[in-house]
Amino acid sequence: MATAGKVIKCRAAVAWEAGKPLSIEEVEVAPPQAMEVRVKILYTALCHTDVYFWEAKGQTPVFPRILGHEAGGIVESVGEGVTELAPGDHVLPVFTGECKECVHCKSEESNMCDLLRINVDRGVMIGDGQSRFTINGKPIFHFVGTSTFSEYTVIHVGCLAKINPEAPLDKVCILSCGISTGLGATLNVAKPTKGSTVAIFGLGAVGLAAMEGARLSGASRIIGVDLNPAKYEQAKKFGCTDFVNPKDYNKPVQEVLAEMTNGGVDRAVECTGHIDAMISAFECVHDGWGVAVLVGVPHKDAVFKTYPINFLSERTLKGTFFGNYKPRTDLPNVVEMYMRKELELEKFITHSVPFSQINTAFDLMLKGESLRCIMKMEE
Amino acid sequence: MATAGKVIKCRAAVAWEAGKPLSIEEVEVAPPQAMEVRVKILYTALCHTDVYFWEAKGQTPVFPRILGHEAGGIVESVGEGVTELAPGDHVLPVFTGECKECVHCKSEESNMCDLLRINVDRGVMIGDGQSRFTINGKPIFHFVGTSTFSEYTVIHVGCLAKINPEAPLDKVCILSCGISTGLGATLNVAKPTKGSTVAIFGLGAVGLAAMEGARLSGASRIIGVDLNPAKYEQAKKFGCTDFVNPKDYNKPVQEVLAEMTNGGVDRAVECTGHIDAMISAFECVHDGWGVAVLVGVPHKDAVFKTYPINFLSERTLKGTFFGNYKPRTDLPNVVEMYMRKELELEKFITHSVPFSQINTAFDLMLKGESLRCIMKMEE
Repeated sequence: MATAGKVIKCRAAVAWEAGKPLSIEEVEVAPPQAMEVRVKILYTALCHTDVYFWEAKGQTPVFPRILGHEAGGIVESVGEGVTELAPGDHVLPVFTGECKECVHCKSEESNMCDLLRINVDRGVMIGDGQSRFTINGKPIFHFVGTSTFSEYTVIHVGCLAKINPEAPLDKVCILSCGISTGLGATLNVAKPTKGSTVAIFGLGAVGLAAMEGARLSGASRIIGVDLNPAKYEQAKKFGCTDFVNPKDYNKPVQEVLAEMTNGGVDRAVECTGHIDAMISAFECVHDGWGVAVLVGVPHKDAVFKTYPINFLSERTLKGTFFGNYKPRTDLPNVVEMYMRKELELEKFITHSVPFSQINTAFDLMLKGESLRCIMKMEE
Repeated sequence: MATAGKVIKCRAAVAWEAGKPLSIEEVEVAPPQAMEVRVKILYTALCHTDVYFWEAKGQTPVFPRILGHEAGGIVESVGEGVTELAPGDHVLPVFTGECKECVHCKSEESNMCDLLRINVDRGVMIGDGQSRFTINGKPIFHFVGTSTFSEYTVIHVGCLAKINPEAPLDKVCILSCGISTGLGATLNVAKPTKGSTVAIFGLGAVGLAAMEGARLSGASRIIGVDLNPAKYEQAKKFGCTDFVNPKDYNKPVQEVLAEMTNGGVDRAVECTGHIDAMISAFECVHDGWGVAVLVGVPHKDAVFKTYPINFLSERTLKGTFFGNYKPRTDLPNVVEMYMRKELELEKFITHSVPFSQINTAFDLMLKGESLRCIMKMEE
């Protein structure tokens, strides 16, 4: 392409400081260096994690910064050593990577790449410790290696999944993070069998994606657990057959679930990150075979506590990161699940706004009105 | 047999009260009732659980009682409705059963039979709530449905595994409890792959059986963890390649193990029942794929505590009961593992004494000198 090897000037939404509205600016995007790829972003979505690091409460602030990590785009140019991707390829950026060389990438079980594992504090490229974004020569920090709130961005090749070019990027862009995280937690980790009973704690986008996984697995009873009863109606689209609001009972919700299910659910997936919900999700699974999967990230000081007998009676507790999907190896197959019309993505997309109105997307999420809001970059 | 349907008088070791030496007495053993089997015990072994309920510290005392649950015997007669066993069959009694009808027995994953799950407080048969043992007409209580410290005992058919009659009962009798518990924890639950690294916490008989499972799985590095350094020498016979004494370090043993193994072991099996060891066993497994299995039973007030991030970085924690073996379905196959000379049982049998000297077996165990002490009933 004519732009290869040159600095590209384009629009980006810059977070100048914590919690202040983003500002659409003209930024300079440097060419990709070794093992890097410059990507033209066509669609980006907004995830809670963007909001969390934009609010930056209790964090070491990394500003000015270009946030964004759920997106779909097309390769513009590649740096030295990049052989798996070429200009024109359709890609999904991922906040965590797959180097294909480390012990984790070589393990069939792990997706926690040593080289490219998520790093929320780093605002630069790992190759040279520099940013590829500048405004009038002054660097703007990256975010989790993706920074998709920019018309062009530079990403390590290990953080890009090459997908079917026929897949609509305005839909599959949401597979970059939250939806795959929830879906994989059920399909890859909890693995409910056909006809089983599954409890999902937390009915936000990740929880509903976990529920979609339960539906795809053929679970016959899917119990949604949330403190907000308004969530039940939406959850029904994802296969929710029963709803439990822990506030409606004066006993622990694990006891309520055990009574509803003759001893416990077969599988539970925890998507809230609240420590009490984590404990309930574990203790509500059936003895003998129950498996609970933790997805939500709790406060760092929270402690998981339970009586060991809950394990000794043959319960299993596992955690997952990005639904145990290896980004480059597995995401293309998740896209194909959508293409085969098994996985339904449309029901997650509740809103869309032009990129220029990105602050509206933040407002919708902060008010709890959106599951996913898609932004078209060129608008 | 000539004795079928009649009361049999024979020798039994009776525990008249907590912590007092057992007394060899003549007892009357009533014929088996519906779904029961009367078994002539040829060999019995002693397990820590017998000692624990003999000491009866902090327990509701159930005395006088005939203890014993690791044994091998031959069916003498069967009660009404028993079709799977006949006089002359060789059997291993098991402290927990398999009714083959309940949800647990019908699940491929569970061995926690609803009907015949271990019950340490019950001293009578489940069919009619009566004891089959008397002395001068006064009932003597049963123990965990087996009471093998008697030349004849009555056992529910669901608690008897029919085994290869060629298997030497003086060896395979130890598969009734502890050895199968440890072995199955590794083979059925932790499931290490060939070449992996396994840590075993606690090098008593159960821990060494878990280690034997690691050896059979082809683990290339087997790390024994115990507070008693004298245990290392014996453990080498079971495949132990490294030994760690937590007392030798002034940091948590999980950190020591992580440093020794470039990030953590692939599998850990906890066989002490101490809560700190349970937590260490979980926290010492590698992120991404590590699995820890809890076997040891802790004090009922002990609480398992860890930071949720230890789960979220893709570790798994499971508990097991009787090594996840279904007593009737699976134990015959474990006996065959011994018959094929894969599983080595001889190295667990450190002592043997005549049944009449059963108190010597208790002394050896209390002093920590024996792994398994076999008693020949007719001596």
